[in-house]
Amino acid sequence: MNKLTDIIKDPQRIVLQNAIPPSHLTDGLQLKYGQADILVYPKTTAEVVEVVKFANANNLNITTRGAGTNLVGSTIPNGGIILDLSLMTNIVELDKQTFTVTVQPGILLQDLQQFVEQHDLFYPPDPGAKTATVGGNISTNAGGMRAVKYGVTRDYVQALEVVMADGSVLTIGSKNVKDNTGLALKHLFIGSEGTLGIITQCTLKLIAKPKVSQTFIVGFNTIEQAIANITTVLHTLTPTALEFVERKVAQWGEQYSGFQFPLPNSQAYLIIMLDGADLQTIEQQRQQLLANLGDCDFFVAEDSKQTNQIWTIRGSLVRAVEAVTQQDPIDIVVPINRIADFINFTKQLEVQTKVRMLAFGHAGDGNIHLCILRDDRDDHQWQSDLQLVHQALYQKCLELGGLPSAEHGIGTAKVSYYNDAIPATNRQLMRAIKQQFDPKNLLNNQVYTTII
Amino acid sequence: MNKLTDIIKDPQRIVLQNAIPPSHLTDGLQLKYGQADILVYPKTTAEVVEVVKFANANNLNITTRGAGTNLVGSTIPNGGIILDLSLMTNIVELDKQTFTVTVQPGILLQDLQQFVEQHDLFYPPDPGAKTATVGGNISTNAGGMRAVKYGVTRDYVQALEVVMADGSVLTIGSKNVKDNTGLALKHLFIGSEGTLGIITQCTLKLIAKPKVSQTFIVGFNTIEQAIANITTVLHTLTPTALEFVERKVAQWGEQYSGFQFPLPNSQAYLIIMLDGADLQTIEQQRQQLLANLGDCDFFVAEDSKQTNQIWTIRGSLVRAVEAVTQQDPIDIVVPINRIADFINFTKQLEVQTKVRMLAFGHAGDGNIHLCILRDDRDDHQWQSDLQLVHQALYQKCLELGGLPSAEHGIGTAKVSYYNDAIPATNRQLMRAIKQQFDPKNLLNNQVYTTII
Ligand SMILES: Cc1cc2nc3c(=O)[nH]c(=O)nc-3n(C[C@H](O)[C@H](O)[C@H](O)COP(=O)(O)OP(=O)(O)OC[C@H]3O[C@@H](n4cnc5c(N)ncnc54)[C@H](O)[C@@H]3O)c2cc1C
Ligand SMILES: Cc1cc2nc3c(=O)[nH]c(=O)nc-3n(C[C@H](O)[C@H](O)[C@H](O)COP(=O)(O)OP(=O)(O)OC[C@H]3O[C@@H](n4cnc5c(N)ncnc54)[C@H](O)[C@@H]3O)c2cc1C
Repeated sequence: MNKLTDIIKDPQRIVLQNAIPPSHLTDGLQLKYGQADILVYPKTTAEVVEVVKFANANNLNITTRGAGTNLVGSTIPNGGIILDLSLMTNIVELDKQTFTVTVQPGILLQDLQQFVEQHDLFYPPDPGAKTATVGGNISTNAGGMRAVKYGVTRDYVQALEVVMADGSVLTIGSKNVKDNTGLALKHLFIGSEGTLGIITQCTLKLIAKPKVSQTFIVGFNTIEQAIANITTVLHTLTPTALEFVERKVAQWGEQYSGFQFPLPNSQAYLIIMLDGADLQTIEQQRQQLLANLGDCDFFVAEDSKQTNQIWTIRGSLVRAVEAVTQQDPIDIVVPINRIADFINFTKQLEVQTKVRMLAFGHAGDGNIHLCILRDDRDDHQWQSDLQLVHQALYQKCLELGGLPSAEHGIGTAKVSYYNDAIPATNRQLMRAIKQQFDPKNLLNNQVYTTII
Repeated sequence: MNKLTDIIKDPQRIVLQNAIPPSHLTDGLQLKYGQADILVYPKTTAEVVEVVKFANANNLNITTRGAGTNLVGSTIPNGGIILDLSLMTNIVELDKQTFTVTVQPGILLQDLQQFVEQHDLFYPPDPGAKTATVGGNISTNAGGMRAVKYGVTRDYVQALEVVMADGSVLTIGSKNVKDNTGLALKHLFIGSEGTLGIITQCTLKLIAKPKVSQTFIVGFNTIEQAIANITTVLHTLTPTALEFVERKVAQWGEQYSGFQFPLPNSQAYLIIMLDGADLQTIEQQRQQLLANLGDCDFFVAEDSKQTNQIWTIRGSLVRAVEAVTQQDPIDIVVPINRIADFINFTKQLEVQTKVRMLAFGHAGDGNIHLCILRDDRDDHQWQSDLQLVHQALYQKCLELGGLPSAEHGIGTAKVSYYNDAIPATNRQLMRAIKQQFDPKNLLNNQVYTTII
């Protein structure tokens, strides 16, 4: 058996025990920390293979890590090896003719987006954390604002190279657009949070870059009115983004960013982005929407400055909260006609428990992001209040036909809500798959659900 | 244990041995026939459960059947039970607010499409066989003309109810648009050709019905020119359909349908359909495309009559061939920039082997449908020529980075090409999954690949 130093020859790419920086023992929330024996930074698939074989030989479990921005504890290791893929950033091939790009998994989303847009192409998935890695995006099936029009990461994965728990290398998928040749293994790996294999290369589907886009805001007197009009919006046009935010939530973003959110007299907003081939078409769609919506306030961003300010305010909400107090992020999804019910419930719960909550989210797909604010609670009070609130929220979410995770995943943080939401038979099948793919339970065995 | 007559009380819904009509012992090609002991027509999930338990108790294998239009032998039974779901046609719920429809699996695609369109909604998947069932469509991940814009059946399956091989009932997915709560079991069932479970109910995603559509044809002097311009089309606009057809292939359709295909002086065509909110936008996109394409012939369908004639000719190609001679259908897919290479190869092969071939297909996604014509060959000659041609075609397809099935599946007919195309490690994982889901190998054990 190779020694690790024979596999990764560059000493800077192996870090041992106490020398492992705390930032590598946690997730994007940086509230909980684990421990690990070895942190390695492979640069090639071959190195990943050898590290996995080394782990096998020494019975060390592996926690795979992209940028560590996940919000569910899935990169908090429990001993063993941290496999950090952040040096695997190569762009292997841009194939304009097949509209695909092939990259190593450690490339940052923002770098990928910028690269393909230089070539007049477009990678639609757009989760908030632009410094996440593409491998992390695939492993959490990341969503984001543009999902309502363009879908989620799953929809853009054409092929994967995966190192399995025994060190064998799998290639799944191809540059072919259609594929009905065998079971859809590819889809099992997408969203599996590193439990089934290590993605070492991926081929992503691109589209032609939309030529123009426009952002506008519809203001309403109540959140109910805003939510009630989501269906009208979706019947009238296909928005690139369709976000809802309440006035009092927008104010957090205003304070943090220093920008003014438009329509200050409205109580709730739908923020809508349209994109397309020309401005005229977009204008027509907007007019049509206005006609269908009837009485409401309306603001159109006239230039890129106004557009950026709106999206900066929307994008800064989590950080605005975190500048004031610790928070716990919720990523539930409900059927789109249940958003208002859920939001109303959070308001009742706020009154009842005195725990402040900020709700906003992807209205177009029922994905509600909720920040639960710690404020000045001590540890004990915070844990007990949080548990109370969690239980009520996830329970309500299930009642409404929702699910505990839309796009952040389960990790370690949401296992019990996953258990409540997913029937035992389904979980049993997932466990059976995990066992077939990773019989020694080496990969991310601290997280997730397939192993519980 | 229940007797079958206790489970299915209506005697007309149980047919035994010799009374089973030959049409139920075959697939859409009706060239090969199997045999079976019992044909049952359940009407409810509960009945399916009991039939499966009965099969278990008596060690009878099950061949699930929708409309039997598949082209790959997957409904040719080898003894045991034929489970015909064609009476399970209920529309359980149309939920306009969440853009979903829930149906039993036996509903015909054309009935589903018509139903939702009456409600101003739209179910985009549109494979050629409108009398296929939705359950069959899901089980083969059916594609069709509109896939280039709207995607395939996989993209519209929100939830499934599945009866597993042991008679347990699984519910997977929901009305939620996003879902990252656990492994993507749903995607395993989609396209699994009845090998993993029996779909007894499904919830499908709908979209708002496009308001207008337009069909036009671009004529070229050579097939190479036509194919070379596919990328230009895809960079300029998002076609609803983008089909290629050669003059000499269109002529088969002309003769069969009695209609004239436009631009008779061109040698190859791209048939393009656009849809959208208004005609003006479509016109603009078409103008833009014309500008980008440069020198070519052009025909716009002025009314629904002309439109229908074009699509009737395109849609009748297989039947036009079958009216003249037996044929073998090929459903390969290659990366979109390799279509011309493949077509050229078929021409060389035609010259070389004297076997006539008609190529046409979904240019927008690299999916080439090829009819291999038997003409007047006797059985022996046909089998040996077909094998020769198959080997050359599938070999070429792999060389070009393609796959043996885009949308028809593997069934029994394509197993050896599947074996060539998919690495052994991947097939081993598929087998492992099959074994976990159906340990006694009762479901569709004559077909497919997970069991070989
Ligand atoms: C400010 C902020 C905003 C966010 N906004 C969004 C949002 O809008 N939408 C959204 O979906 N998420 C969002 N997230 C969550 C997070 O960014 C995503 O989950 C992201 O996809 C994680 O990528 P990462 O590279 O940081 O992965 P990590 O956090 O390093 O890992 C995530 C999981 O994937 C696994 N993994 C990583 N790389 C690989 C690989 N190559 N092979 C196998 N497994 C791997 C890990 O083991 C882990 O289980 C946000 C996070 C923050 C901090
Ligand atoms: C003229 C013609 C044109 C066609 N055009 C296209 C096309 O454009 N695109 C395309 O993709 N296909 C096309 N096909 C192929 C065929 O129509 C599709 O594969 C269709 O989806 C099969 O549906 P079915 O109801 O006939 O299924 P069947 O043929 O009855 O079954 C197909 C497979 O699905 C399984 N199955 C059926 N129902 C269920 C269920 N409820 N649960 C579990 N398993 C089930 C069966 O066991 C079998 O393995 C065409 C066929 C013909 C004859």
